[in-house]
Amino acid sequence: MANQPLVGIVIGSDSDLPVIQETANILEYLGVGYELTIASAHRSPGRVREWVKSLKDKGVEVIIAGAGGAAHLPGVIAAETTLPVIGIPMPTLYFNGQDSLLSMVQMPSGIPVASMAVGKAGATNAGVFAAQILALKHEAVAQALKKFKDELAQGVEKKAAKLDQLGIDKYIETM
Amino acid sequence: MANQPLVGIVIGSDSDLPVIQETANILEYLGVGYELTIASAHRSPGRVREWVKSLKDKGVEVIIAGAGGAAHLPGVIAAETTLPVIGIPMPTLYFNGQDSLLSMVQMPSGIPVASMAVGKAGATNAGVFAAQILALKHEAVAQALKKFKDELAQGVEKKAAKLDQLGIDKYIETM
Amino acid sequence: MANQPLVGIVIGSDSDLPVIQETANILEYLGVGYELTIASAHRSPGRVREWVKSLKDKGVEVIIAGAGGAAHLPGVIAAETTLPVIGIPMPTLYFNGQDSLLSMVQMPSGIPVASMAVGKAGATNAGVFAAQILALKHEAVAQALKKFKDELAQGVEKKAAKLDQLGIDKYIETM
Amino acid sequence: MANQPLVGIVIGSDSDLPVIQETANILEYLGVGYELTIASAHRSPGRVREWVKSLKDKGVEVIIAGAGGAAHLPGVIAAETTLPVIGIPMPTLYFNGQDSLLSMVQMPSGIPVASMAVGKAGATNAGVFAAQILALKHEAVAQALKKFKDELAQGVEKKAAKLDQLGIDKYIETM
Amino acid sequence: MANQPLVGIVIGSDSDLPVIQETANILEYLGVGYELTIASAHRSPGRVREWVKSLKDKGVEVIIAGAGGAAHLPGVIAAETTLPVIGIPMPTLYFNGQDSLLSMVQMPSGIPVASMAVGKAGATNAGVFAAQILALKHEAVAQALKKFKDELAQGVEKKAAKLDQLGIDKYIETM
Amino acid sequence: MANQPLVGIVIGSDSDLPVIQETANILEYLGVGYELTIASAHRSPGRVREWVKSLKDKGVEVIIAGAGGAAHLPGVIAAETTLPVIGIPMPTLYFNGQDSLLSMVQMPSGIPVASMAVGKAGATNAGVFAAQILALKHEAVAQALKKFKDELAQGVEKKAAKLDQLGIDKYIETM
Amino acid sequence: MANQPLVGIVIGSDSDLPVIQETANILEYLGVGYELTIASAHRSPGRVREWVKSLKDKGVEVIIAGAGGAAHLPGVIAAETTLPVIGIPMPTLYFNGQDSLLSMVQMPSGIPVASMAVGKAGATNAGVFAAQILALKHEAVAQALKKFKDELAQGVEKKAAKLDQLGIDKYIETM
Amino acid sequence: MANQPLVGIVIGSDSDLPVIQETANILEYLGVGYELTIASAHRSPGRVREWVKSLKDKGVEVIIAGAGGAAHLPGVIAAETTLPVIGIPMPTLYFNGQDSLLSMVQMPSGIPVASMAVGKAGATNAGVFAAQILALKHEAVAQALKKFKDELAQGVEKKAAKLDQLGIDKYIETM
Repeated sequence: MANQPLVGIVIGSDSDLPVIQETANILEYLGVGYELTIASAHRSPGRVREWVKSLKDKGVEVIIAGAGGAAHLPGVIAAETTLPVIGIPMPTLYFNGQDSLLSMVQMPSGIPVASMAVGKAGATNAGVFAAQILALKHEAVAQALKKFKDELAQGVEKKAAKLDQLGIDKYIETM
Repeated sequence: MANQPLVGIVIGSDSDLPVIQETANILEYLGVGYELTIASAHRSPGRVREWVKSLKDKGVEVIIAGAGGAAHLPGVIAAETTLPVIGIPMPTLYFNGQDSLLSMVQMPSGIPVASMAVGKAGATNAGVFAAQILALKHEAVAQALKKFKDELAQGVEKKAAKLDQLGIDKYIETM
Repeated sequence: MANQPLVGIVIGSDSDLPVIQETANILEYLGVGYELTIASAHRSPGRVREWVKSLKDKGVEVIIAGAGGAAHLPGVIAAETTLPVIGIPMPTLYFNGQDSLLSMVQMPSGIPVASMAVGKAGATNAGVFAAQILALKHEAVAQALKKFKDELAQGVEKKAAKLDQLGIDKYIETM
Repeated sequence: MANQPLVGIVIGSDSDLPVIQETANILEYLGVGYELTIASAHRSPGRVREWVKSLKDKGVEVIIAGAGGAAHLPGVIAAETTLPVIGIPMPTLYFNGQDSLLSMVQMPSGIPVASMAVGKAGATNAGVFAAQILALKHEAVAQALKKFKDELAQGVEKKAAKLDQLGIDKYIETM
Repeated sequence: MANQPLVGIVIGSDSDLPVIQETANILEYLGVGYELTIASAHRSPGRVREWVKSLKDKGVEVIIAGAGGAAHLPGVIAAETTLPVIGIPMPTLYFNGQDSLLSMVQMPSGIPVASMAVGKAGATNAGVFAAQILALKHEAVAQALKKFKDELAQGVEKKAAKLDQLGIDKYIETM
Repeated sequence: MANQPLVGIVIGSDSDLPVIQETANILEYLGVGYELTIASAHRSPGRVREWVKSLKDKGVEVIIAGAGGAAHLPGVIAAETTLPVIGIPMPTLYFNGQDSLLSMVQMPSGIPVASMAVGKAGATNAGVFAAQILALKHEAVAQALKKFKDELAQGVEKKAAKLDQLGIDKYIETM
Repeated sequence: MANQPLVGIVIGSDSDLPVIQETANILEYLGVGYELTIASAHRSPGRVREWVKSLKDKGVEVIIAGAGGAAHLPGVIAAETTLPVIGIPMPTLYFNGQDSLLSMVQMPSGIPVASMAVGKAGATNAGVFAAQILALKHEAVAQALKKFKDELAQGVEKKAAKLDQLGIDKYIETM
Repeated sequence: MANQPLVGIVIGSDSDLPVIQETANILEYLGVGYELTIASAHRSPGRVREWVKSLKDKGVEVIIAGAGGAAHLPGVIAAETTLPVIGIPMPTLYFNGQDSLLSMVQMPSGIPVASMAVGKAGATNAGVFAAQILALKHEAVAQALKKFKDELAQGVEKKAAKLDQLGIDKYIETM
């Protein structure tokens, strides 16, 4: 975990750790400090509120919350703060995270949660989106994001070149 | 509103009043006292908690919460009490209450919400189910429920007899 | 199985046993006596009715019914009694329990079934919710529930502390 | 209603009458006798069983049951008889009959319900399908069905000819 | 395959054979003769029509058709005959057979297909339902069905007795 | 209807005429000749086959088929020809055309149907897509398409300019 | 439109104006300058790119894009900038905006779009969320947001007081 | 890869290669030249546009684009060309490709994308459909398609004959 935390990350259950790891990884890659904890909107609501209250003093500017099923965590946090809250719908066993998505994206007028895609892609993008917000104030983050975006394009170029060279059958063998 | 309140009813928005009226009606019919208020899990979370804390002293034994969209209200209440919480998924403009249903039925292990059907049928049934719980302790409610159940069966008999008498085409004209 | 049965549990098929085991476990943990049987609304409807009729004499106060697909079992039971009926939508092969959920939550006005989440979380919560109902009359159950709720919050605290200590990568290794 | 009833039709609620009228109409058109009643699997389960038991003596050979929401009626009937049971999923306010369809089509192994389309098309087809079953024994029904099928094809021919003659814009004006 | 074929079974692809085997098994168990073939509504439409035309001469009285995805096979057959057509929605890789179900249950007014559940339960029930139709004319089938229905109820009784004897944990070990 | 028909359009029911009118309109606008008829895959399957067989002699190069519900028409046509078949999923009363879409897009390997959006947007696009195919051979169509695409962009420009000029409130008043 | 534009708003079609008006209204209420235009990802892709390129020079810090159906507009913009992009899924005729939601929330890893609720609630929340981002740098916006949040809670209090005073039946009459 | 490329194929990610291989295989089988590359609508939008611009000079007449999730690639290409664009919705982890399908089939009026089935069946059919378009100009492709269609029918005949010979149980053993 880099320097001073600008992002506060929270998940409702430790079973969400392998997904939220993507958020941690991309924030580290972009040089954005964060803190990460576990707090359940349903099993430990008091802990959630205390954590949210503690964030401004620590200098946290953006909140990322991942939750699954009746995924209230990001909405419950958004009710307690005016910091921007980004939600990651966690995959679920029987509804594949569609329950998680609807439980966080359909917030009522006045209390937004910014929803990302279900699962690891959403977890990475929550980190990128937090960085895009921070980049408005923090030039170093802006630079890191620009580099990251260039690398995304270059990654596609490299794969296209590899496909040109190997052809589809040999490329698939290397996967 | 009859006698001492045994049921606490809360909705997230006054737009839910025409639906929750069914709950009030059936409780009155069954002679069960209730109190009813508005409190939003997202717009007034503090008010929700205070209301929940006030219930035990008032003698309330069952809670009914109606909410729509990212319908966190019953789950947020269930997090703060061990009283039984019954949820009514309110109809929504774009998802017809399917978002409301998933947001309340998919609660995590340990913190149940008892979900009813979407809309007015669910609102009536929330009242009936609350009465079924109270009937375990309150004999007058048990008697009222038994009578209500008999009337349901008799209502079907009457309609069947009317259909026998009128035939389908004339019956439809009377609807 | 503890003392005198206050909860009657029924499943439609023995393939539901690994899920309903969660209900049995939590009831035992909370010190609530129960009885458990198998009866199918479709393959043995007479057996279902006889079982329901036998419950009041045994002192059963709450019914839990688990079923999958065209999951009629809880509704069929609710038609025959005024005891509160809690439904557990069982996971299904092709619809992931969404068919089971809709088949039990969308009950008509007058005959409620209290639906829990699909699968094991719902099975645990059916037990917790039954205990919440019983706690209104049985002080020992009320005490057990209070302790259980405290433990849920403590469980989250412990995991958060472990995460603080180990960091995310090492925590995941221990999972 | 023509001659001796070969088809027994039942609906769970009189609100289903305008849909089931299509079943009555097509059976009359095909010269198939029927009887029609109202009985709810949830509000009057005893009445449903008595009605089913009465059918064999009356000479009824096929059962048609229409129900909406947690649409248990056809399945509950199929549990009590070996006569073929045809189900019509009734349209519903919030799930458009998708709840009704899943509640009847997903019957467990051993107890079939033959599901038709949601709503009026399904109601007509329930009548046609009942007639197709009866036509195996009743030559007059077989003849009526053959004529009906020819008329369906001729109806399309007529509309195609009208379209050729009028062109699309004028045809739409006549609709 | 028993005696003279009363049921004609067709599937759109040999990948459906493991599912349709359930239909063959139950028909054999009930003593109903059948014939089984492969014909695709899309890849070999001419073959489908020839097969349908051949059925009446062979004495076939009921048709069962299984198909997946854009599952047109039962509907295409229903367009060519007035024999009753039963459809089995085959499971699919990405839509779990929900595409198959909608493609066959939503037939237009006038041309019914009787839809069963998705997959093996539906395949068994297609056979049972065909037997229920045939039982109206064939007493031996009626007897076999009655015995089958009794066995279903007895199977539940046996499992319930086993559960009483072993308790849930030991029962699960035997599964 | 302009000159020689290059596109053959067919709908399953005259109730689809107001939607298919969009296809006719755009083809006329692009100067592409077409013929239009009604033929049902289920009610008049023979008529469908005869119509398809007649198309090559008439010089038709692309087929557009609109159908709703168990929307087999485009797939049934694709089974009988190697001409490209474009499908328009028609809106339906209870499934909003989602049944129509799945019934045509999920065609099996080897027999493609090119699916457009549900309803009028899809009907327009079926015409545009047919023109895009024809433009590979017919230079006049290529020119017309290019002009049409430019007009689409200009239409957006005009609306943006109007919005700049009027502001949002006044613009809405003009709608 | 207040002072210097900090938010750039774009919609794909002028039919989205009545929804996006909510965004404009809340931004004006919060004292946040914005500019608003129409540009379609599909009909005028060049215009979209030019508009995005123009934003940094104008000092725009957050982008809000509303689109319906295959709602590519926010994603296409996110591909061209590192400014934060907020998406509003517009309601659609046949899928109620579920298509719009999935088309924008399921963005691939690396290119986030922050999705709001479908329709007007989402449009208001897009404005609130943009303000929450801007509040990190702009103290006046932070103050306005805090006041807005207090008013939301007070609004609930007022409605609850009105309900206490009037009772449910009279309250409904005033709606 | 045969002769001169008439089809341009593009996928958004190399993870789509095993699916798109079906497209390559069928085009080779039908003797249709193609070129294949990787370009992401979101990670490398500039590369997508350059590739599209390059196609006309190379003589490419049809474009096939496969993408998953917020699957904008075919729509983004359709915005930049009047060549026919065929879309393959790629399977996705949590929505099984239903997100991909809706993101490409629901294109707005004026800019069509021709959607195929989700996954490998859709990938094969994209190739077949491209060939059906090209067959209007290229007689060799027309001949190859005719032969392919005959082989499809013969393949069904062979399987049916094998089933006749072996019976169902032995046939399944050979699978």
